[in-house]
This record gives sequence, structure tokens and C-alpha cells, in this order.
Amino acid sequence: MTHSTHTFVAVLAGGSGTRFWPASRKRWPKQFLPLGEDSSTPLLVSTLARVAPLAPSERTMVLTGRVLAEATRALLQEGTVGRVLAEPIAKNTAPAVAWASRVARRSDPDAVVIVLPADAYIENEEAFRSALALAVTAAADGAIVTLGVRPTRPETGYGYLRVGESTSREGVRRVEAFVEKPDLAHATAYVRDGFYLWNAGIFVFRASVMDDAVRAHLPALAEGLDRVDEAVALHGLSAEDSAIDSLFAGIDGVSIDYGVMEKVPHVHVVAVDCGWSDVGSWQASWELGTKDENDNVVRVGEGASVVLEDSRGNVVSAGAGKVVALIGVEDLVVVDTPDALLVLPRARAQEVKRAVDALAAKRRTDVL
Amino acid sequence: MTHSTHTFVAVLAGGSGTRFWPASRKRWPKQFLPLGEDSSTPLLVSTLARVAPLAPSERTMVLTGRVLAEATRALLQEGTVGRVLAEPIAKNTAPAVAWASRVARRSDPDAVVIVLPADAYIENEEAFRSALALAVTAAADGAIVTLGVRPTRPETGYGYLRVGESTSREGVRRVEAFVEKPDLAHATAYVRDGFYLWNAGIFVFRASVMDDAVRAHLPALAEGLDRVDEAVALHGLSAEDSAIDSLFAGIDGVSIDYGVMEKVPHVHVVAVDCGWSDVGSWQASWELGTKDENDNVVRVGEGASVVLEDSRGNVVSAGAGKVVALIGVEDLVVVDTPDALLVLPRARAQEVKRAVDALAAKRRTDVL
Repeated sequence: MTHSTHTFVAVLAGGSGTRFWPASRKRWPKQFLPLGEDSSTPLLVSTLARVAPLAPSERTMVLTGRVLAEATRALLQEGTVGRVLAEPIAKNTAPAVAWASRVARRSDPDAVVIVLPADAYIENEEAFRSALALAVTAAADGAIVTLGVRPTRPETGYGYLRVGESTSREGVRRVEAFVEKPDLAHATAYVRDGFYLWNAGIFVFRASVMDDAVRAHLPALAEGLDRVDEAVALHGLSAEDSAIDSLFAGIDGVSIDYGVMEKVPHVHVVAVDCGWSDVGSWQASWELGTKDENDNVVRVGEGASVVLEDSRGNVVSAGAGKVVALIGVEDLVVVDTPDALLVLPRARAQEVKRAVDALAAKRRTDVL
Repeated sequence: MTHSTHTFVAVLAGGSGTRFWPASRKRWPKQFLPLGEDSSTPLLVSTLARVAPLAPSERTMVLTGRVLAEATRALLQEGTVGRVLAEPIAKNTAPAVAWASRVARRSDPDAVVIVLPADAYIENEEAFRSALALAVTAAADGAIVTLGVRPTRPETGYGYLRVGESTSREGVRRVEAFVEKPDLAHATAYVRDGFYLWNAGIFVFRASVMDDAVRAHLPALAEGLDRVDEAVALHGLSAEDSAIDSLFAGIDGVSIDYGVMEKVPHVHVVAVDCGWSDVGSWQASWELGTKDENDNVVRVGEGASVVLEDSRGNVVSAGAGKVVALIGVEDLVVVDTPDALLVLPRARAQEVKRAVDALAAKRRTDVL
């Protein structure tokens, strides 16, 4: 696949969250971890490799928090991305997406921008890129397009998109509604219905179209970005950070879904079957991982040794050089780091937060 | 209790073994670990404290391997023991006991020596010391006396002593036989019989009596020790190490039980009920440990934090400063060190060796 001339990629890598503690930390979030099929490549690196055929590196941006910017740059090989855009404080996704849109538009007035999260997993990358290519074509015509993943189970942890009427372009339909995370009864009905797709947080749009939508629905954000553009026009890129500081300090945090997508009249959707996962827990990481003959998944650093004796269905994460031995245990999550260790059943992977909360109560924020 | 004038103590602390890996290592064996009731005091230190009322520190010796001598001295507070006798190579217990006997005799021709292992646990220390005091009295009369622990279960991991006829001294009987580790049927019969005691490896004797017994049954060892005594007489204590080197290089390894005790005509025994354990596994360490309200035993270093959420019956060992979180797990052994981690069910604590063997096969002797 060759990338179309005006395509830009903006990877949202601001992630926080505690579901992979202690491997993930406030300053070392999930997208830095190798949680997918490949036990040595961080999710962010896999995400960039996956979309590399769609846009050259100089038109690829990574958006992250300023506290993570240095670690993010260190993780990425020289030349992998054009810019790392560092948000001074977390204000949810709308300011990040709108900023990325302006950056793209400055360099190309006809820019089409693909926005996607840094920390998802995709099994069938060809299917994923084909869907994105169709979305880019539709976006070039002026639509805001989202990718909708065909649900394979009644997942209650995801938002859904309800698909509406078709458009003039084959494979592209209108989004009838954005649907919040459902209960199990509703999720089951959605999967049976066939007109519901998972909202994977992936959007494609012309930068100019997004700018207009932001101006219509989040005018303060649009005006703030005007001042950023002015500062850059007058003083060059070195002026961008302080202008962004002022902007972020003054605006409210809001998601791109709630702040823009749900309010613009026509969002289009391309459905895709690509084996998508948001890698939401150690359970998901086990499901995606390469398993040994006893269904164990091992994700360890260089020089580590893992001994598994009569042990099945475990997921083991450990740092470089560490020796980990499991004897006679099943379906456990064992996550070791130099300063913290977690053991819990895989079926209870959603409960990691209990440990994090208990440590916060003990004022052990040094390990969170 | 005041110690009798001629009593010496020799603590056998040469231990190796793998049952507490990864907390224990070749260069950091079990007796250095806090595995008893108190989660901060090493077994060796508890053993010395337990016998301190029986002999002053200057008449207390610790025998260990030369590779462990420095660590042993570092572990003991200044003045806790008179001498650390460092065996150049492991030759089982007979050479160590015979050497300690000579050292005691050099300083006091009437010396009575208590020999005991460094790595056992004793619940009722008063009962234990009373039994030893009786044994010292009997030994002063010329007997070799052993302590026999009344069995509380049909243990197949210990050797037994069969008790014979009584002696002229109340509470002291003859040993009729030393019995190897039995199968369960025999062990059950032994407990029911009432005339079998556990062999705890604790012996009390006049140094002169032991010297004679060694000369009778292990003459090469006795002659070698004569040369050590001569070297010390001629050149002082600084000559002892190289004389011991020559001795240990030339003799066969043999246990004091097999080499001497089982061959001398009359060994006496004092029975004791003292809540004795050889602390043979993480299971034993859990049994002895102080439990929280959910039967968890935590043995961690300074500054460590352990979070136990909905977890029962576990034993957790970790180094200084480490954070360990267990969520929803039961009856596990979790042992963490900076370079190695072990997880296994408590009921399978005997299988630690499988991990050690697997790591040896992987040439990871650096962590063994």
C-alpha cells in the first residue's frame, strides 16, 4: 500500500490508568508496554508500525503528556515520527485532536488526519489498513469518518456506534448514534442486532473540516488554537509550547466524542473485522499473547529466565535479567518489577485497582 | 538459669540446601533467614540466643563453611560467639564436631560440649534448656547424650531414636537404636509405640569422651586433629587454618551419627517436648510464622509493603523496600528477591528443587 498524498497520522498516547500496574506506572503507562502478540514490542511502537504504510514518518505525530514526552521520544527510534506533541496537562482528547488537526493543516491545507489510540491491538493489519484507506477516501470528500469494529462478543466495557443509512460510497454508512457502555442485556442485543459496532476511538477527517467542527461546538478551543497558530506564524515553532500552555491552562477537558463527534450532523462509519482489542487488562494481554504448550504467556525483559513447572494458563511479566519460577500454579497473573510485585488470578484481572488503591492509602505513591 | 562451669556450645551452621530458594542461596543458606516465629531474626541468631543461658559467648563456637565465614561473622553481633570455625570444604558433620571438641578441650580439659544445628526452631525454650541441662549433667558423668524430641505426628522426613532401658539418672535412658527416615506405616507405628523419638541432631558430651570415640571409630580424623593441636601448640592459633586445610583435604566426609554415635556402645537420651521443628520447607515456615487474621504469614525486609486483598493462607517473603500485592489468592508461597521470584502452592513446598534443577540445567547458577 502506498500512502495518499495528504494523509497525516496522529497517535493519541497520553494514556494513564492502573490496569497494568505494577508494569505500568503514572510515568510509564500502558502504551510503553509490550502487551500484544509480540512480547518485546511496546504497544505504541506496534501502533506506529501498523500505520506506517498510510503516511510517511514526517507526517506522523504522537500526542502525549509533557511528563511522558521524554520517555516517549526515547522509546521511538530516530525518524519514526515527525513530531511528539506534548500536552502540558491532561484535558481529555478534544484539545489533543484539535491541536493535531491544526499542526497538519499548517503543513498542508488539504491534510486528511487519521487519529487513533496508541494502545490497542489489531490482529489483521491488512484489513485494518484497507478500512482506514476507505475512510481516508471518504474523509477527503468532507466527511468525518470513524472506524467501527464488528463486535465478536457482548462486551460491556466498550462504547458502541449504531449504524444508520448507507451513503453514496460503498462500505461507508452514516452513524445513527453514539451509545454509552451498555449493560450485558443491551450488549447481547447489540451483537444480535448486527447494526452496532464497537467504538474504537479511531477517526479520520480533513483538518479543515475538524477545525470548522471545533469552532462550531468548542469555540473557546478553536480561538485558543488561533492564538497558537498566530504565535507560530510570528515566532516559529519554538513559540508553540508556551502558547499551548496558555491554551490548556484555560480550557475545560472534554472528549472528542462528546465535544465534537456526537454534535456534528453527519459522522460516517467504515465497519471492519480486524481482530481488534483495546488490551484492557492482563486477561486481554494473555488472550493476545503467544502461548507455550501449556497456555502460558511470558513477557519478560532481556536476559530474564522463566521456569514453568507443571503450570498452566499463566501470564508472567518481569524485567530484564530476572529469574521467575512458577511451580504447580494455574491461571495466575504474575507481574514483577524491581520495586513491586503483583500476583492475582487471571479471572480477577479487573481487580488490579484494589492493590493500587490500597497502596495509595498507605502513601506508597512512589510505586504507582 | 546459670551455665555450668565447663559447658561449651558448638552450633553447626554449615547448611546448604535448596528448600528455601530463592531466599536461600549457596552463599546465603537457610540459617541466615528469618524463618521462625519472629519474621526479622535469622534462625542462627535465634539459636544462639536460645542457648546463651547455657554457656558464655567466649565458650560458644559456630562452625560453618569457609565461603560462609565472612557472612556469618557479619550476621553476628560483636561478642556473640567466641570463635567462628570455618571448614575449608564440606566433609559432613563428624570432622566439624570432632574439631569443635578439640577446640573446647584445649581451653578446658573438663569441657562438656553441646552440639546443635543452627537452623531449627523451638517453641518452648525453657523446656529445651532444661533438657539440655540434664543432658550436660549426664555427659559430665561420661556419657554421650542426645536429645530426643517426642514425635507429634508420623513424620517421614526425620530420623528416629529407639529408646531403651533406663539409667541410674532419672530422665536419662539408653538409646537402643538409631532409625533411618521411615515410611509412613513405620512412622505411624513409631508414634503409637511411644518409645521412638525424633533425632534432632543435638548431642552433649565431654570433649575427652568424644575424642576417645573419634579415635576408636575414625582414627584418621583423630590423627589429623592431633596434628592440628600440635601446630597450634607450636605456632599458636594462626597456624590452625592451614593445619585444618591439610586435614580436611585428606579425610572422607562422614556424619557424626553414622561415623561415631551409631558405633559407640552407650549413647544416652533425654526426651523433650519442646515444640521442635527443623523448619524444612516454606510450609513449615508458614506453620511457625505469626499469622494475620486471614492466616497469611509475611516475612519482608525493612521498608517493604505487603498488600493482601481477599487472600488467605499465603506466605510472602520479600526483600527490603519491595511492594508485594496479592489479590484473591490462597495458600501460595511467594518468595521474591532482587534477582529471582518463586510462586508455588504451599502444599507443594517440597517441590522447590524442581525450579533449582531447571535453572541449573539452564546454566543459571548465578541465582542458585
